[in-house]
Amino acid sequence: MRASLHPVLEFTDRPCSWQSMSDLSATSDPVLAGFRNSIDNIDAALIHMLAERFRITKAVGAYKAEHELPASDPGREERQIERLRKLAEDAHLDPDFGEKFLRFIIDEVIRHHEQAKQVG
Amino acid sequence: MRASLHPVLEFTDRPCSWQSMSDLSATSDPVLAGFRNSIDNIDAALIHMLAERFRITKAVGAYKAEHELPASDPGREERQIERLRKLAEDAHLDPDFGEKFLRFIIDEVIRHHEQAKQVG
Repeated sequence: MRASLHPVLEFTDRPCSWQSMSDLSATSDPVLAGFRNSIDNIDAALIHMLAERFRITKAVGAYKAEHELPASDPGREERQIERLRKLAEDAHLDPDFGEKFLRFIIDEVIRHHEQAKQVG
Repeated sequence: MRASLHPVLEFTDRPCSWQSMSDLSATSDPVLAGFRNSIDNIDAALIHMLAERFRITKAVGAYKAEHELPASDPGREERQIERLRKLAEDAHLDPDFGEKFLRFIIDEVIRHHEQAKQVG
């Protein structure tokens, strides 16, 4: 490192970090950058939660197959939807979206189970 | 409470808790009930995370409108997808599903922004 009489100028001479692809928020607006950082943290949490959920549903699939339990349980699904709609409402989230989200996840679970059948 | 010579029999005479609609896991199998409890906890966390994410994207929409910033940023979306695919892979989740999930969320964000425009 060499000394500089104009450290601030020298800093601004470099490419700004928000121009770099590695900086996700990529904006010169500090308020927008803050919002984007929060969104990115939440997205990372969501992805890890989903990974854990699918780990469990895979274990459920294996357990049900091993113990000859029925693969689907329509009553359980109905109760899950009812509960998630209520939770969504309490969190000021559109209950229809809450239900749509659960169906999106369940579709993926079914896809995993079908894949497992083809492999097994 | 009255005393009973056959407490176990008396217990099983009652409707089993897993037959009740209020019990989400609704199974007599303790292993399956454990899996279901974990899934239900994760689903509650996911719903609350999503509620917080939409709170932030609503604030972003309002902030962009107020400061006359462009509503969409294709470069940002591209970077988010790239990052989520990587995070999904690290968490042993199908990267295609990670991307599909982000698009599912972004579609809902766009729907919110369109609704806000109609109201505002």
